[in-house]
Amino acid sequence: MNNFTFNIPTDIRFGKGQIECLSQELEKYGKRVLLVYGGGSIKKNGIYDQVMEQLKDFDVWELSGITPNPRVSKVREGSLLCKKHKVDVILAVGGGSTIDATKHIAAAACYEGDPWELVLDKTKVLKALPFAVVLTICATGSEMNCGAVITNEETNEKLELNTPLLYPRLSICDPTYLYTLPKSQTAAGTVDILSHVMEQYFQPNDEAYITDVMSEAVMKTVVTYGPIAMEDSDNYEARSNLMWASTIALNHLLTVGKGGAWSVHPIEHVVSGLYDITHGFGLAILTPAWMEHILNEDTKKRFARFARTVFGVVNEDDMIAAKAGIVAIREFFKELGMPETLSEVGIDDSKLMWMSKEAVRTSGISTRAYVKLDEENVYEILKKSM
Amino acid sequence: MNNFTFNIPTDIRFGKGQIECLSQELEKYGKRVLLVYGGGSIKKNGIYDQVMEQLKDFDVWELSGITPNPRVSKVREGSLLCKKHKVDVILAVGGGSTIDATKHIAAAACYEGDPWELVLDKTKVLKALPFAVVLTICATGSEMNCGAVITNEETNEKLELNTPLLYPRLSICDPTYLYTLPKSQTAAGTVDILSHVMEQYFQPNDEAYITDVMSEAVMKTVVTYGPIAMEDSDNYEARSNLMWASTIALNHLLTVGKGGAWSVHPIEHVVSGLYDITHGFGLAILTPAWMEHILNEDTKKRFARFARTVFGVVNEDDMIAAKAGIVAIREFFKELGMPETLSEVGIDDSKLMWMSKEAVRTSGISTRAYVKLDEENVYEILKKSM
Repeated sequence: MNNFTFNIPTDIRFGKGQIECLSQELEKYGKRVLLVYGGGSIKKNGIYDQVMEQLKDFDVWELSGITPNPRVSKVREGSLLCKKHKVDVILAVGGGSTIDATKHIAAAACYEGDPWELVLDKTKVLKALPFAVVLTICATGSEMNCGAVITNEETNEKLELNTPLLYPRLSICDPTYLYTLPKSQTAAGTVDILSHVMEQYFQPNDEAYITDVMSEAVMKTVVTYGPIAMEDSDNYEARSNLMWASTIALNHLLTVGKGGAWSVHPIEHVVSGLYDITHGFGLAILTPAWMEHILNEDTKKRFARFARTVFGVVNEDDMIAAKAGIVAIREFFKELGMPETLSEVGIDDSKLMWMSKEAVRTSGISTRAYVKLDEENVYEILKKSM
Repeated sequence: MNNFTFNIPTDIRFGKGQIECLSQELEKYGKRVLLVYGGGSIKKNGIYDQVMEQLKDFDVWELSGITPNPRVSKVREGSLLCKKHKVDVILAVGGGSTIDATKHIAAAACYEGDPWELVLDKTKVLKALPFAVVLTICATGSEMNCGAVITNEETNEKLELNTPLLYPRLSICDPTYLYTLPKSQTAAGTVDILSHVMEQYFQPNDEAYITDVMSEAVMKTVVTYGPIAMEDSDNYEARSNLMWASTIALNHLLTVGKGGAWSVHPIEHVVSGLYDITHGFGLAILTPAWMEHILNEDTKKRFARFARTVFGVVNEDDMIAAKAGIVAIREFFKELGMPETLSEVGIDDSKLMWMSKEAVRTSGISTRAYVKLDEENVYEILKKSM
C-alpha cells in the first residue's frame, strides 16, 4: 500500500430536507453571497425558491448560465462579481459543472491576474473564498473533493485545477433533488460515477486490497441502482444510494494506497473540450474501447476480478471472464441509452491524431497509467470508438 | 437511507515514516506538550525515541501507565498536569486505550469539575485541548473518531464519552509500528475491528445498500489479513490493510444511512468493566452466542448474506448458510487463539444477572438494537457464553 494522507474538511449534510440548515451554516462565513447556477432548471423544480427562502436575510448576487464543460469566461465574470461586491461566500446550486466553476471563481476572486493562469499553474492559488454546495445532479463527486475541470473556449483546452484550498465547506446532498433530472442526465451521471471508480481501480498497485474491495462495493452500487433511478425517477432508495456513491467515488477514499494516472478521462476531456459532447456520453463510448485495447495476459486477472465482482460474471478462466466483463459493460451502457460511437455524437475522424497528442500532452497517460498509452495507442482507441 | 451528516476533521498521515511530519504539524498548536502512553512497550520498540526526536524543541510532560480499559483516575492525573503546566496540545502514543484516555483528558483539562461528570453528561464538554495521535495498536478506530470509552474503577462503570469536539487533529498511522505487537494483541484487535463492522452491519435498515456492501468489503479485508498479520508479524501488506480497516471500521463511514444501537459491545463493556478482561477476548466469546440467540426467520436473510460475502459460505438456503456463518466465525476466532467461554477467562456465573441489567441500563440494546434484547435475553447470551 502506498503512503497517503486523508483529510477532507467538507461538512456533508445528506438526506431529505437538509436545505433547512443552509442559512445557519452559510452565515458563519458572512452575509454577502454569490449564487452560482446553470440553465435555470432549478427555477422550474422549486430548488431555487427553497434556496432563496434560506437566503432571505443575505445580500445575494447571481451568476447563472454555467454550462456543461464550464468555461473560463464565466469564471472571469464570477470572479469580477465577487471582487466588485466584496462577496463573503459563494453558493453553488447545481452539479459538477456549476461546482467546478464555483471552485475556480473562489480562487480567481482572490487572485489579481487572469483566472486561466491558475489552471496553468495551480501553485498560484494561495487563497480562496469559502463556498458551499447544494447538489442537484450527482456524477462528478465535486461536492466532496478539491478538483475542478475547466474549459478554455479560446484554446480548446479542458484542464484540471486541483488544490486543497478548494474543498467545499458544506455540501447539501438531498436525493429528492434528483427526482426531476432528465433520464439522459441520470444515465450520463451513472456512467461518470462508474468511470471514476474504474479509473482508480485499474491501477498498477495490487496491495491496497481494502481500497479495491471498497471500490468493488461502490461499483456494485452504481450498477445496481443506476438503471432503477433512470426508470423510476423518484425512487428514494436508488437516488440516495447513487448520490452517496457519486460522492464516495471521488472523495479520495477509493484511491488511498494506490496511485497512478487515469486513463479514459484524459482522452474524454480532450474530446469534449473540442466537441462539447456530454462527458458521460464520451466516457461510455471510450471506456469499452480502452478496455479492449489494454486487455492482455498481464491485465486479464484484474479484468476478470472486475467482471466477477461488479457484473457477476461466472467463469473460472480469467481471459474469458475478462472479455465477458467488457461485453457486460457495453450492455450496461446500452441499457442506459448511451451512444456507442463517436460518429453517433457527430464527431468525425479528422482530429483523431490531434486529440491523441493532446491527451498525452495534458496528462500522465503515457507515463503513469495502468497500462501506459502513447499517442499511437490513444489514436487506436479513438479509431476503434468511431 | 436515513439522513446523516459526515464531517471528519482528522488529518490522517498513513504509511511508513510518517512520523517525520509530527514536529511540524504539532507546533501549529503550541510548544507545550503532554505525552500520554501506556506500559512502556514504546520504549522497547523504539517508537518513544522517534517521538522524542520530533519533540526535541518542545516542552514535554509525560503521563505513562495508561492501561487497557483506561481509568478515570489516570484522566484526573492527566487533566491536572495539563492545567498545572498550561499544556497546549496532547500527544497520544498508543492504541485505543491511550487515545481514549487522551480524549477524556483533553476535555477534562478545559473543565472545572470532576472529569467523570463529563462522561455522565457530555453536554458539559464545551471545549477541549487539541490532541494528536501516533497509533501503535490498530483496533478501536479511535484515531479517526470522536468517541472514548472510560472505566470508573470506583463504580465499576465502563461508559462512552462522545462529542465532535474530541476528534484528533492529526493521526499518524505507520503500519510498521505494529510489527512488534504480541500475537494476542494483533488477534484481539482483529476481533474488535470485525465486531465494530458487525455492530453497524446488523441494524434494522436495509436501504443503505452502499453502506452494507462497503461494510462487507471491510469485513473481508479483516478476515483476509488478520490471520496473516498474526502469523507473519512484519508483513506490510497485511499490517497496512488491517490498520486502515480498523480506521474505516469506526470513522462513521460504515454507519451512514443506517441507525440503531449496538448489541455486543454494550454487554462486553459491562463484563470487562467488572472483570477487566481484554476487550477483544470478551467480544470473541460473546459474539457467536449473540448470533445464535438472535438468528430466526426474520434475521436469517442478513445472516446468510454475511456468511456468503464475508466467509464465502456457499449454500442457497438462508438458514443453513446463516448457521454455517456462525460456525465460520467461531472457527475464525479459534484460529486467532481467542478464548471461547467466559469461564476460560476466569469469570463465574455469580454476576450474570447484574451484568445483564447493567447492559440494558447503560445502552440502547433493549430499545434500538438490531434485535432488541431485554435483561432476560442478555442473561441467556451470557449463560450460553459460560
